[in-house]
Amino acid sequence: MTIFQQRQQWLQGEMIKRGWSGFLVTHHVDIYYYCGSMQTGYLFIPAEGEALYLVRRSLVRAEEEASADVEALGSWKTLAERLRARCASGSAADAPLRIATELDVLPVQLYGKLQAALPGAAWEDGSLLVREQRMIKSPDEVAAIRGAARVVDAALEAVIPHIREGMAEFELMALIEHQLRLRGHQGLMRMRAYNSELITGMVATGAAAAVPTYFDGPAGGTGLHPSSPQSSGRALLVRGEPILVDIGCMVDGYLIDQTRTLVIGDLDPELQQAYDVAEQVLRATEAKLQPGMIAEHLYLLALDQVQEAGLSAHFMGYGADQVKFLGHGIGLEIDELPVLAKGFKYPLAPGMVIAIEPKFTFPGRGVVGVEDTYLITDSGWEKLTISRDGIIRV
Amino acid sequence: MTIFQQRQQWLQGEMIKRGWSGFLVTHHVDIYYYCGSMQTGYLFIPAEGEALYLVRRSLVRAEEEASADVEALGSWKTLAERLRARCASGSAADAPLRIATELDVLPVQLYGKLQAALPGAAWEDGSLLVREQRMIKSPDEVAAIRGAARVVDAALEAVIPHIREGMAEFELMALIEHQLRLRGHQGLMRMRAYNSELITGMVATGAAAAVPTYFDGPAGGTGLHPSSPQSSGRALLVRGEPILVDIGCMVDGYLIDQTRTLVIGDLDPELQQAYDVAEQVLRATEAKLQPGMIAEHLYLLALDQVQEAGLSAHFMGYGADQVKFLGHGIGLEIDELPVLAKGFKYPLAPGMVIAIEPKFTFPGRGVVGVEDTYLITDSGWEKLTISRDGIIRV
Repeated sequence: MTIFQQRQQWLQGEMIKRGWSGFLVTHHVDIYYYCGSMQTGYLFIPAEGEALYLVRRSLVRAEEEASADVEALGSWKTLAERLRARCASGSAADAPLRIATELDVLPVQLYGKLQAALPGAAWEDGSLLVREQRMIKSPDEVAAIRGAARVVDAALEAVIPHIREGMAEFELMALIEHQLRLRGHQGLMRMRAYNSELITGMVATGAAAAVPTYFDGPAGGTGLHPSSPQSSGRALLVRGEPILVDIGCMVDGYLIDQTRTLVIGDLDPELQQAYDVAEQVLRATEAKLQPGMIAEHLYLLALDQVQEAGLSAHFMGYGADQVKFLGHGIGLEIDELPVLAKGFKYPLAPGMVIAIEPKFTFPGRGVVGVEDTYLITDSGWEKLTISRDGIIRV
Repeated sequence: MTIFQQRQQWLQGEMIKRGWSGFLVTHHVDIYYYCGSMQTGYLFIPAEGEALYLVRRSLVRAEEEASADVEALGSWKTLAERLRARCASGSAADAPLRIATELDVLPVQLYGKLQAALPGAAWEDGSLLVREQRMIKSPDEVAAIRGAARVVDAALEAVIPHIREGMAEFELMALIEHQLRLRGHQGLMRMRAYNSELITGMVATGAAAAVPTYFDGPAGGTGLHPSSPQSSGRALLVRGEPILVDIGCMVDGYLIDQTRTLVIGDLDPELQQAYDVAEQVLRATEAKLQPGMIAEHLYLLALDQVQEAGLSAHFMGYGADQVKFLGHGIGLEIDELPVLAKGFKYPLAPGMVIAIEPKFTFPGRGVVGVEDTYLITDSGWEKLTISRDGIIRV
């Protein structure tokens, strides 16, 4: 049994508990997660029996890749009949189907088309279940994330000797991306949330890094134009200003996320002190990082620590543009569960992979902070990112 | 009046014809199109009166950028009241609202949340209307696309001297991306269709280029891993094999799309002949490219021409993996209207920008072809891509 079939089997157990007939997986990332292929089509996992991958293109590649029965998608008119046949063993032939799918990402138009193709079916929102299953990584997933961590570290080390005063943010980002791509970065950083995009991460310096953005992260960046108002822009690197290098990459489908603060020369004492608090928050979080700890508690503990340091107004953005989290799950997508934020009651469990990123924003001056990605283990944690600790002086 | 307000005004005229109360623009690309800002939130364009941009983050940037009244999104409980207030001039205070939104991209979950926040409202699918409006580009949009065309050309010319036998596809792609980014490419290639992604385009050589993919384009590419099964992989450049360089970039929000066939040495005669047919198809298409020509006719004419040349089986992919189009609109996204394909009855009109890409796939051998992006003018067309014509011999 492949890892993909094991995932289908786990989902089947949950479906049986809920009385669902099957799961129609529509999102390409979830399709890959459950069958190891990402061709265009729909993956139907019945509550019992074999999964069926209905493929539009490329059928040949799906057949080579997928841990599922593969058929041409063909006419939508036959969809109801084919899905019902897969469910036959578990239910009366004329019982209404209860089909789950990912309503967090499925567009309304396509949902309507699916509803019309399966008249009488009852639909369930299975997106949270999928995201919760994906929260716990298998060893092969952790191995892929380790691979991505090595690529990010090697790319960062490769560019450090080339960093110069007067270089533009986007030039430094272009260098980093080139090194990432040469080492196997697939060139995408997937996000699940509607309208979300990520451009390798954020490389920004001084005041430009502290410019707020729509992006749901603690640092902003001007971007090159209002049509993509985040990440690197045209600001030039200046001696003594913090250069925030918050980057990731995708290797074998899996993402890593890491931040280091760089500086040409030395930071001014106030920013240096804030950086030190960021490291203290990370160390204090590590000390609590173990199975059973509730995700939101880590955020609340960090808030307390930051308040004691007198830096609450600067934590994870400034003023109205603060974001309300300390970290996030990461895997096939960068915005996975659990989130270290209020309202996220998940107890940490072995196999979770979480990026933790305490940062402080000083409008007009810059952003300082650190981010590492951690695996929760049976006894505590293991850091998956491998770049050197501390401020990197160029 | 800004260009963004002119767009709102056009949409308002269409809404009045349809009896809609307003358009709740939810998709980030459409929000940018109508107000010039892309912060997180919702842009409400009432059928009459001023647009209201309800922003979660960053309010400050939205205020600087947007051609609309900007307010904090705040509580969803006040949404109905605030939208109704914007519609007040045109309808009785208690008349039910008819609100359009983009159901081609809006996820079901978020739609449900909007429906709950606006009880009693009737919802209309406004996505086709938006896509049709966006089909006709204004001079500023064409100028941005010209800028992107210059960047693609300069990046291509910059890498040509570095192309060598034995270089891997992904290495060539990394070089191209680096040159694009240094020249202002924003690092994203936006697509609208569900599950669609684009990694700068496709650089692929020989047999690897002819491997089919899920990607809705004529050429495939192995990619680096089944988790992203398209575009450049690890195949090495070999003398005499066609190297398909199908690339784009985003400048000031707008995309360009261009393909050239490169070769180290010479192509074998059969592939060279197919390439020549691709150029003939492009020239014949140009001859018909003028206002009033129906989009699908250009595709049908190309099919005829390809059949006469005896290359039907190889056109735009091979066998079951052929795609059924000759070109596509392009602008803020790469998959815009009109599509040059069966069923697309749009008459060409001045301001349309269309990428036209006749290509031939030979399994086990490679893909040859050409792609240029055209502006439809009052009297015919203008080519926006500026790279040199013909096969590029390295």
